[in-house]
This record gives sequence, C-alpha cells and structure tokens, in this order.
Amino acid sequence: MNYWSQFFIPTLKESPADAEIASHKLLVRAGLVRKLGGGLYTYMPLGLRVIHKITQICREEINAGGGIELWMPHVHPVENWTEGPRWNVAREIMFRADSAGAGKRAPAEPEFVLGPTHEEIITPLAKTEITSYRDLPKNFYQIATKFRNEIRPRYGLMRAREFIMMDSYSFDADDEGATQNYLRMKSAYERFFTRLGVQFIAVEADTGVMGGNFSHEFMVPAEVGDNDVLYCDESGYAANREKAASAIVPADLADAAPAGAVEEFATPGVVTIAQLEAAPHSVPAGSQFKTLVYIGDGKPFIVILRGNDELEEAKLGSLGFSLFRPATPEEIAPVLGAKPGSLGAVRGTIKDPSALAGVFADHAIRLVGNGVTGANKDGFHLRHVNVARDLAITRFGDFRRVREGEPCPVCGKPLKLRRGIEVGHIFKLGTKYSERYNAVYTDAQKQSRLMVMGCYGIGVSRSMQAIIEQSHDADGIIWPWAVAPFQVLVCLLDPQNEEAKSVAQKLAAAAEQAGADVLIDDREERPGVKFKDADLIGIPLRVTIGGKGLKEGVVEVKWRAEKEMAKVPVGVAESHLATLVRDAWEKAPRVK
Amino acid sequence: MNYWSQFFIPTLKESPADAEIASHKLLVRAGLVRKLGGGLYTYMPLGLRVIHKITQICREEINAGGGIELWMPHVHPVENWTEGPRWNVAREIMFRADSAGAGKRAPAEPEFVLGPTHEEIITPLAKTEITSYRDLPKNFYQIATKFRNEIRPRYGLMRAREFIMMDSYSFDADDEGATQNYLRMKSAYERFFTRLGVQFIAVEADTGVMGGNFSHEFMVPAEVGDNDVLYCDESGYAANREKAASAIVPADLADAAPAGAVEEFATPGVVTIAQLEAAPHSVPAGSQFKTLVYIGDGKPFIVILRGNDELEEAKLGSLGFSLFRPATPEEIAPVLGAKPGSLGAVRGTIKDPSALAGVFADHAIRLVGNGVTGANKDGFHLRHVNVARDLAITRFGDFRRVREGEPCPVCGKPLKLRRGIEVGHIFKLGTKYSERYNAVYTDAQKQSRLMVMGCYGIGVSRSMQAIIEQSHDADGIIWPWAVAPFQVLVCLLDPQNEEAKSVAQKLAAAAEQAGADVLIDDREERPGVKFKDADLIGIPLRVTIGGKGLKEGVVEVKWRAEKEMAKVPVGVAESHLATLVRDAWEKAPRVK
Repeated sequence: MNYWSQFFIPTLKESPADAEIASHKLLVRAGLVRKLGGGLYTYMPLGLRVIHKITQICREEINAGGGIELWMPHVHPVENWTEGPRWNVAREIMFRADSAGAGKRAPAEPEFVLGPTHEEIITPLAKTEITSYRDLPKNFYQIATKFRNEIRPRYGLMRAREFIMMDSYSFDADDEGATQNYLRMKSAYERFFTRLGVQFIAVEADTGVMGGNFSHEFMVPAEVGDNDVLYCDESGYAANREKAASAIVPADLADAAPAGAVEEFATPGVVTIAQLEAAPHSVPAGSQFKTLVYIGDGKPFIVILRGNDELEEAKLGSLGFSLFRPATPEEIAPVLGAKPGSLGAVRGTIKDPSALAGVFADHAIRLVGNGVTGANKDGFHLRHVNVARDLAITRFGDFRRVREGEPCPVCGKPLKLRRGIEVGHIFKLGTKYSERYNAVYTDAQKQSRLMVMGCYGIGVSRSMQAIIEQSHDADGIIWPWAVAPFQVLVCLLDPQNEEAKSVAQKLAAAAEQAGADVLIDDREERPGVKFKDADLIGIPLRVTIGGKGLKEGVVEVKWRAEKEMAKVPVGVAESHLATLVRDAWEKAPRVK
Repeated sequence: MNYWSQFFIPTLKESPADAEIASHKLLVRAGLVRKLGGGLYTYMPLGLRVIHKITQICREEINAGGGIELWMPHVHPVENWTEGPRWNVAREIMFRADSAGAGKRAPAEPEFVLGPTHEEIITPLAKTEITSYRDLPKNFYQIATKFRNEIRPRYGLMRAREFIMMDSYSFDADDEGATQNYLRMKSAYERFFTRLGVQFIAVEADTGVMGGNFSHEFMVPAEVGDNDVLYCDESGYAANREKAASAIVPADLADAAPAGAVEEFATPGVVTIAQLEAAPHSVPAGSQFKTLVYIGDGKPFIVILRGNDELEEAKLGSLGFSLFRPATPEEIAPVLGAKPGSLGAVRGTIKDPSALAGVFADHAIRLVGNGVTGANKDGFHLRHVNVARDLAITRFGDFRRVREGEPCPVCGKPLKLRRGIEVGHIFKLGTKYSERYNAVYTDAQKQSRLMVMGCYGIGVSRSMQAIIEQSHDADGIIWPWAVAPFQVLVCLLDPQNEEAKSVAQKLAAAAEQAGADVLIDDREERPGVKFKDADLIGIPLRVTIGGKGLKEGVVEVKWRAEKEMAKVPVGVAESHLATLVRDAWEKAPRVK
C-alpha cells in the first residue's frame, strides 16, 4: 500500500492555459502528467502507474495473440530509412539526431533519425534472422517510445512529440498466413480494449503512407476525436471518413445518354461552383463537374468530382503516387490552358494532354447526365457534357467524401456519423517492405520467396487519455477498475487519531489481500480538500474513516461512479471491502 | 511456458567481428541482442526477458529505498540544458534533435537534445512542484533509455549510444537529510546487486563533471573492466583510481631543509625525465620535479609532480575549472619562457606569472628534499631546488596516480589493484543544481531555502553484460538464477514422441508451478545441437527427456554450472524438479 504523504500527486485547481479538451485538463489537474515542452510530457507517479497497467494488459493480450516481445533502438541509422519505401514522406514528420557538440553544424543529410515506427528496422532484421519456412510465422512486437516532430503539438498526449506505442510486425510464408495473423491481432486488440474498460469500435481504414492491402482502425468514440467515423447500426459497417464508401451510385447504373452536342458559353467572372449555380447561369451544383489539378510525384493529374461533392484527399492515396499535392495556378495554366475556375477535362480542350499523369474521375460523376464544366479557356464553360462521350477519363475511382445519411454500402440504410479518437491501427502490408529490403525465406521446395507482412500499432499513452475523455464528470476522472492507478482509496480524515489510523491500515491490508492496489490519504488536510482530490484523481472505490462516522462505529464506502454512499460497521468493514474488491474484479470487463 | 519453436532465439556459432570481449561475443551468439548500427542494439526476445527481470528487481529495491517512479521525456528542450551548470561539457557527448525534413538545415544551435541523464529536467520540475518542507524529502526515479553520442562505441552494451539506466534524484530540506537519502540509496544498490547474483564492490569515486560532495561507484570486478580499483583487504578501503589516495606522504612529514643555493646547469637536448635520469646528469626521477601546464577555463595553470609520479588527470577536477586541457607548446612559451622539457616553477624564473591561474603542487613533491627542475630557459635546469623555499606554489593537492602496493590511506597496508566494470554510481550533489535553477522550498519558519540534492544511476543494460562477463565459461553463459531469461530448460530430444512430449509438459508445468520460468526445446534438431545451444544460452537448470534415458524410465537433470548430471526416475521427476526450483529460490542471493 502507498501513503499519499509519501507518494507524489500534485493536484491542481486550475487547468493549464493550453488545455482545450477535458482529458488534457484532467491529465494535468490530477497530477498524472507535467509538460516539459511542446508535446513533451513527464509521466508523474500516478500517471505512470496507469501506463504500466495498460502496458501489462497489452503485453498479455499480444502474447496471447502470438506476439514475441523485443525492443528496438530509438535512434536509427538513416540508411535504414533511405533504403525503405517512404523516406521522402516520413522524413517530414521525423527528428534527425546529430552531434550537439559546440560548433558542429549538422550535415546536410542526417546520420541518424528517431523512430516514429519500426518497419524500416524490423524488416532488415527479419531478412537476416529468418531464413527458412520453418521459422515462420513470426510476430514481433515492442512497447516503446516513438518520436514525431509535430509542428503543432496539442491535446496533451493526443498529438505529442513523444508517445508510447505498442508496435507489432508479423511475417508469414504466404498471404493466407498473413490474413490469419491479421485476424489474430484483430482479436487481440478487441480483448485488449475490452479489458481496458473503454468503449471502442473497429472501423475500416485507409492504409495511407503505410501501404498495404487493408486495414482497420480502433476508435474510442468521443466528441473531441480527430477522426470522423461513418457507420451503420443495421449492417455493422464502420469506416474512417478517409476510407468510407457509400452506395450513392447504384451498382447497375447505366451510362447517361447525351443530351445534345457540347456547347461553349461565356461565363465572365465565374470561377466557383456557387457562382455558376447563381443567376444568370443557374446550373445546379449537382450538374456541374468539379475539375481539380494535383501534382503526383512531380507530374500533374486531374481529379473530376460532382460539383456538390468534396474531395476526400486521403483517397488519392489509391492512385499510387508516393507524394501528391494540389497544383498551383502557375503549374496548371501551361497544361490545361486556363486558370482555376474555367478548368475541365473534355477531350480536345486540354492544352497539353501528354503532360498529364492521368484524369481520374469519381464514380459519382456518372450520376450527372447533362453536365457543365470549364472550357479550359478563361471565362468560358461547356454545357451538354456527357461523361462517357466527352470526358478524357483515365479511370474511375472513389475520391469523394461520404456524408452522413448516404446509403450504407452494405445494406443501403442511411449512414451515421460520429467522432472518435484513434487508439489502434492494424495493417495487412503484403510485400511492400519485404520486397524493398529483399526479405526472403526458403520454402519447403527450396525456392526463395518474399515474406508477407502485417503491422499493428496501439497508442498506449493515447489510450490513457482516451479513457479519461470517455470516463469523467465535472469533478474529475472515473477510472475503469483494471487501469486505475489505485483501485481503493482509504481516506483517513484524522491521521493523528491512532484508532482511525489502525482501522485504515487494516482495511487497506484487506483490500490489498483481495487484489486491489491501495492508496491511503494520510495528509493533514481538511475533509473537503481530500474529497475534492479523491474525485479529481478518480480512484474507483473510496473508504472514508473518521469524523462522526467513526464515533458511530461505521466507515463510509462510496464508488466514484455513483452518488450514494454506504455506511458499514467497522466490525465487518474488512470482509465487506474484500468482497467489493473481489466482485469488482469479477465484474471488470474481461475476456473469455 | 514457452516453446523454443514458437519463441525466437537466433544462436550463432561465430562471434561478430567487432566483438573484443567474451560478454559481447556471448550477447550476440546467444541471440540476446543484434546490432543495428554502431552502439545501437535491438534487445532480442531472450535478452529482453533478462532486461525485464533486472528492471523489476531494480524497481522493487529502489521503491524499498523510498524511490517514487516517474518517467521523463527523452527529448529535452535545449533551454533546460543551457540554463544548467554543465551544458558546455555535456553537449560534446550529446545528440541534438532537429527536423529531418527535406532541405531543412539544422539551426546553428539545437532546438532539442536527447537526454544522457536528467538533472536538467527533474530540478526545474522539483522547483515547480515542491514548495514546502512538508513535501520533503522526495526521491524520484525512472528506468529509461539514455543517449550518448559515443564517437567510438565498443564492447557491445558497455559503451553504447543508447542504454537503459535507472536514474534517481533525491531532494532534501538539508544536508543531513541528503546524507540519509544517500545512505538509503547505497543500501538499495547493495540489495539490488546482491539479488542480481553478481559479485560487486562499492568504491569511493570522483564526482567529475556531475559535481557534488562525494560519491561511490559500484563495480563488478572483471579483467576487461574499464576502471582500475585500488583496494585494501585489511581496512575495506576501495576507490576508483581517479579518486584513490595513498599514505605515501606521512601526515607528520616535516619540510625538507634546503641543501644549498639554487644553481643553473646546462642540459642541452634533455627534454624528458628519463634523459635527465641518464648519464651524464644522473638525476633520479624521484629527485626531479615534473612541471605540467594546463589551460583551465581559458587560463594557463601549472601542476607540479614528482618526476617518478604520473598525473591522474581526473583529480584536476578538484581545482574547480569547468573545462581544462593540456596546454600546447605555443601557449606555454609566452608564459613560462621556454618549451616543454625545460619548464619549472621556481620563483623568479616564470616569464609572466600574472598570466597564470595558479601553481598546483602534488603533496608528494614534499618528499623531494633537494630537487632538479627546468629553468624556464631552453636547455637549462636548476639544481638544489627546495620545495618550501623555491617553488611558487598556490596550493597543494592530490594529483598523482596511486600505484598498487602503496600504503592504504586508512591502515597503511599495501593497496591492491583490480579492474572493474562500473554498473552504478551515487552522488551527493549538494546544491549545485538547485542553486542554478533556484529550486527552493519554504521551511517551517517560512524562510526560502535551497533543496539539497543527490543523484543516482544504475546501468541496467550494462549490468546484463557485466553479469555475463563475470559468469560464463568456454561453452556459454551461466545465468544467475534470479535474472535468467528462463530458469528451467526442458530439453525434448524427440519432439515427435508423444510419451516424451507428455512427460516434458508435465515437468514444465511442475517447474512453473514451483516458481520457475520454463522453456521447452521442442525443435527438430540433433541432441548435440540442442545441448550446445543450451550451454550457450545458459539456462540454470536443464532437464533432458528422451533417448536411452526415457527407455530406462529416467530423465536427466543437470545444472548449467556443474559438470555432473543426475538420473531421476520419471515417476518422481515432477516432485524432484519442483523441489530443485524451490531450493534454488531459497538459495538465490537475497536480502534480509
């Protein structure tokens, strides 16, 4: 058991000025963390206890999912990254590490970098250490600090420069094995988040810069989450907005018939969808084509959307460019022949079609029968544009942002939207990394084959904050039982009273014996201060000893999550408390 | 229990080319670590198990010593360091961290640095969080990765760029409290190293750049250690050579009487002690003065030693310069008036005495009655030099290197010398850091007072290697019981034999039940390969099942540290093994 006076819990009345969300405020006010610098936090003794508990549950469940724990360096030779497939993108959010010696200017290119994740380390390691199909499958993981050079760290541990992550990497002989590992890890994640005592949903997600075949994110629903999730109660479909699809385009939609010959008309001063929608032109946004130009790996490409749709930029990742960004007007003019506002992709109107890496059209433009688009001539548009007949499309794809209420892609019922905090992510990677590092093994037929990989991440420090975001009230944190820094708080109102002290120690011992971590508040403080602090730090079960109660021969037992308080005679308090502790472990979310 | 085939222990027959010492070779050969880059190692699954065990023992004993665990960031804002007392020295071995973004040249001065230790972080934290004498004493610790930009990493984990350290920082209201905390930590260290099962000695040590009042190092004796320890079996005195004293100068030594007037004589071509010792001059080294010139914080100073003594450079730290180094001949000539080889400190011979920061003489020169020194005139020396009469000494001190056989400073018996690996260090810091950061508290009289600090470090990853260095034989590692990655290895010779497999599982379960971590070697390998690997990875207790033995109804039980093997009938093997495990825990080094 621990005594508050010997421990260190610097609670605060005021929230820090930079804290925008409840969980960030409570992390600091409850003395769980202290800020060292932007996105850099010290885990104070109480906070570290929560981290240790989350870490231990994580370790148990990843082990049960077949994971083998190891620990890789934080500092990486840059060669591991430059030889990998995503250095050019990843470096922008990475730290380099060079000598801090006086007068030593850093070299133009880094010698070392700090790891934001470890595919670039584990794949070469597996290449060296795994040689035969007999060594497969393997799934290596670590629970360690990661580094991201966040330009604008915020929300406490949510977007920090240093954070604690469980990262895992599976290696399989074939695609089927990789799928098995993926599903084992998905189950391990479900067990892990269940045991944390947090509500979560697994959603389909974009693979992004990580690459690979498919991926799920684990989200903790919360108003302040930085992810939009579209989901359907009916079918169970759930996806991150970056990935979400809808059935807005019927699968059996026939191509629209042309409504007439393409016709140019003057639109002086019209450069937005809204302007063209207004009089005198009065073209509904849904009948316009929105023509966007991007630069992908140095070459321009066009994306066509319906005028009333928004681009979901992450979906451009499916086009296979390693880097892409919006083109500038200066880059657009020489290729299309006009400035933004009059752009289009009608065959024959593009000034230099050979300069384009492609024209990519969102499926939904097929809903536009008779459309209007820019003429690639400043101040002019074209009407009667037919998708199949007139547009120079390289291929169709899903590029639009799905909106709440659109039909679920599985069952057609309206999709709902909620916000969530991403706390985990799993990827089936395929051979993107093993190919790059030539991570091969010899199969039973003595053939050399690429290992098939998966990778998996859990935000450990982020999970701590997500729990707080989901489980708090106006007075403070309400810790779920399994991750509480202490499960029982023995609140000793008069620490000088020897009788009260002795009762407190006996009760604490009984609770500890029953399996709880116990904190005794033995500070010389007024009861009001103690109760306020107790509510703030959120220990699930509080036992108060002293004052009028003790004179009447009772102690007061109260759950943090409940309003009512029970009076228990001192004589039976030890066994009562032990029963409560055992019951709480029984009731805590667990895994079959 | 774990199965070898499901776990990952990549043993090697060959040692890596860069491994110079046994423990480094064995770390790699036994599959405990793999090198990522110079001084950067991945802890493989078996190695990480050892690290976790050492970490847990460390945590238990530091907690028992009053430590409160927290966890500070690895990345530090550089301001924390520039405001501290040792940035100019420490930065030379530190990493800076800047953006790795393309085209981003690092700024002249770092924005962030990676922490090699955390006084610069914890002192400002204590300043903010500790306000009253009622909050004191406190002792905060963490077990975390530290970073050193080693120019020449070597010896595996011994001198690495990343290493795992327990670092602890105590804050007290006064010096007496700080001494109490120091002694509690010294005891905690003794319990910790005892429980590891490693031989160690605590020695007096130099405080070096850390500063502070006094300090002890914990050494694991080993031939390959990078520290010389002088010790006395009689009195128990033990000190690092950098700090060691001897009673070579009697406490009651009277000043020698002059033997005549100082006299210059020509010594053309003589520039070393040895040349002056040879004919024709024939001056014994013990009658010569050795005059060395250093630059301390930009100003030259002189150190005088006996001709037959060596400077122990670390001892110059007691002079109070924050940076010092040997002067170049070009820096010496304008001040002393001569080149090295003819230098001296006789009054009136120094060309520009006002340029000197001081003349510091080792006590032992008082043993020289009638000495010879350079004349500060190239090619000339002075004879009949008397210490008290002739030398312009600012003050005396202990600057010489103590040699084996010199009298113990406590009891006068001859000192012995052995080499050791430094695995822990404790410092009584005093107010060096609290003064710099103005870390004050309010005492009971409402007076503002500086906190008195101590700091303490244990090399966790280094300890793992030191254990191996001390406990191995030609075949491999011999793990002490408490830190062994597994305590029991069940060696299953024929994994296809169902009877053998069932016996193995029962024995493994019995050993686990009795408190051992168990590994079952279920690989399809020849017995010779299995036994070689078993010896290499050094699991303390091995049980072999199969072959002839099993047909005879026995299993073979063998301790890694012993030659003999015992045959145990299968029927009693479970209870026998359980007894061995319980006895091993009983016999394992423990703490009262």
